Amino acid sequence: MATAPCIPSEEYFARIAKFQAIIQNAGLDACLVHGTESDFANVRYLSEYWPTFEQAGVFVPAKGKPVLLIGPESEKYALGRSVIKDVKLMLNYRESAEPDYPGIKLATYKDVVKTAMGSRKLKKLGLVGTAVMTKPTLDAVASQLPGVEVVAADALFRPLRWVKSPNELACHRKAFKIAEKAVEAMRNELKPGMTEFQAIGIAQREIYANGGEYEGHSLYCFGGDRTSNGISRPTSAKLKKNEIIQLNIGARVCGYSSSIGLPVWFGSIPKEQLALVEFGLRAHKYTIELMKAGVNAGDIAKAYTKWGVDQGWGDYMLYGPVHGLGIMETESPWIETTSDYKLQENMTYQIDTFFTGNGYGLRWERGCAVKKGGCELFSKKFMSMDDCKLD
Amino acid sequence: MATAPCIPSEEYFARIAKFQAIIQNAGLDACLVHGTESDFANVRYLSEYWPTFEQAGVFVPAKGKPVLLIGPESEKYALGRSVIKDVKLMLNYRESAEPDYPGIKLATYKDVVKTAMGSRKLKKLGLVGTAVMTKPTLDAVASQLPGVEVVAADALFRPLRWVKSPNELACHRKAFKIAEKAVEAMRNELKPGMTEFQAIGIAQREIYANGGEYEGHSLYCFGGDRTSNGISRPTSAKLKKNEIIQLNIGARVCGYSSSIGLPVWFGSIPKEQLALVEFGLRAHKYTIELMKAGVNAGDIAKAYTKWGVDQGWGDYMLYGPVHGLGIMETESPWIETTSDYKLQENMTYQIDTFFTGNGYGLRWERGCAVKKGGCELFSKKFMSMDDCKLD
Repeated sequence: MATAPCIPSEEYFARIAKFQAIIQNAGLDACLVHGTESDFANVRYLSEYWPTFEQAGVFVPAKGKPVLLIGPESEKYALGRSVIKDVKLMLNYRESAEPDYPGIKLATYKDVVKTAMGSRKLKKLGLVGTAVMTKPTLDAVASQLPGVEVVAADALFRPLRWVKSPNELACHRKAFKIAEKAVEAMRNELKPGMTEFQAIGIAQREIYANGGEYEGHSLYCFGGDRTSNGISRPTSAKLKKNEIIQLNIGARVCGYSSSIGLPVWFGSIPKEQLALVEFGLRAHKYTIELMKAGVNAGDIAKAYTKWGVDQGWGDYMLYGPVHGLGIMETESPWIETTSDYKLQENMTYQIDTFFTGNGYGLRWERGCAVKKGGCELFSKKFMSMDDCKLD
Repeated sequence: MATAPCIPSEEYFARIAKFQAIIQNAGLDACLVHGTESDFANVRYLSEYWPTFEQAGVFVPAKGKPVLLIGPESEKYALGRSVIKDVKLMLNYRESAEPDYPGIKLATYKDVVKTAMGSRKLKKLGLVGTAVMTKPTLDAVASQLPGVEVVAADALFRPLRWVKSPNELACHRKAFKIAEKAVEAMRNELKPGMTEFQAIGIAQREIYANGGEYEGHSLYCFGGDRTSNGISRPTSAKLKKNEIIQLNIGARVCGYSSSIGLPVWFGSIPKEQLALVEFGLRAHKYTIELMKAGVNAGDIAKAYTKWGVDQGWGDYMLYGPVHGLGIMETESPWIETTSDYKLQENMTYQIDTFFTGNGYGLRWERGCAVKKGGCELFSKKFMSMDDCKLD
């Protein structure tokens, strides 16, 4: 196995410096960035740190030293992993079991500000990751930093993560190669009578065997009417012949996610379902053609919707057709009819083509990087109707 | 494979009824319970619903109908899975990518209160799961329910989850049987030169093959000085001979978690490390003897600490020795020197015996149910020094 691509320390420091310039420009004195076990992207983007059991934060002053903020049990782990070596243990990042931790010395945001900013004053603080920022942290900010003006600052941070560097692209490419292997193994080994959970185990085995660090998202393998679920989880139900089974399989490499989705089946499926699968594949390929630098995102969503309606399948469209891809398998920015921004080179997306009928559905999905005049597909496999057949 | 144990619908409804009685008693009109993808326990305990990508809540009125609160993409998934069939889609539970979802009809907490409480007034609302409750939900409560008094109510809800029912115990037992299979497979298949990630893949394969629905927690396999980390994650580092490799492997069955921990190695380890491993195993067995109904939790932690210090190993003890086990692998209540409550029959715990030296550490861990005069160990395997040797 070749060494997995990764993000070097310098790149983390460059991100922090870039963010600090934005913080200064916005007239803020600092930002507090939040991450959780399942939604760790913002914190990992700045530090490489990924909490487990606990939550975490990064305090980024407009000028000065960033500080990694962790729960009481992760000090050695954080010091070994984080590129930010100033680390503070804080009670508000502890696990949800809320232990007391007698004997462990804990910091407050006052201590953090002192370490990060020295004698400089904190008057205005931006919050980043507010979608996942929890009550203990919000309460601690309010009580430990009285008089500080606190504002939401997600909009300042988010665009930093949009355009990917060569290292980030390499991580995505590798994550998709691993996902391809996992999907191929499932296509070879799935059998009627196997549970959905057991099917997931095949993918998990391949993800880790081939250099993945974790699943890219909670993996999908579910059959029957649950294929109509926009979001779902596998169950202990058994795989059956003659019905659609939806696969969405993603690996994670150095933080960066992937997902490949396609409908599969044993035997045959009813004609109207087959027609929707075929239309879905055409819609998927149509969307791929729309992805190129300089195009307005909302125009892509509108073109996709109009095309689907014109083809007579408007009632089968739920949402989509594209969402951002990065550390999170689903991240900002989405491509919706309400979107209003231009696609830039090396922004990364999941082309997520989802249709539902009455009691069934299907999704064709893969990632891409936007380029001039088109896009680079992170996987070109599993794009034909033959790929759907398991026997 | 036998059918996995599960929690029947009636048991969920009995939990809700019990919680409603507590809400009434406490003089609250309702509680709002929160869960996330990684910290979903409170929501799943009441509804069986487990979000992915999005967050979720349960609104429980003192009298009337509970309502499941979900993100905009999970309606069909939630209706298929949740035992609570009144479901509202709300923007504050959307995924952190924060799409707009044009065309999807969303509810507010006002709508929720109307569905749950009809014409009854909401004056005082308790919040549950505040450790993981996020800013969008806190903001929506404040703006959509003006004039309502909001108080933290975790202490009312938490004890409901402490004493396990026969069905819950059956789920834990099964989850430990699966964890045993995963550890056994790792003991048979680990090889020097394999990466830690690859080692995790062996466990993942076994968890799903044997009826697990997911990992019980982020799995541990890491070597060298990282064995001194109280919390950590595996890496792409290769397993080496003659150093401790820490395993903590848990499966999840119908929500209920497990974890089995032990140190293993190829070849041999330095004498002082071996001595700490042996002492750790003795401390583990000593703690098991302390676990019985009626004992004060703080007394267990104090006895453990005193025993360790008396034996001359006080400097090697970091925390512990026991934490609650349930849907979360680490949940309330902990057993710390500051704890003050009595162990009750069928409370479930992880006996988590962790010691660190200079650049190494080890953890012996397994779950148990408290009984009169002792405890039921959920796994009796991997409790000898011979289990540590991989070759």
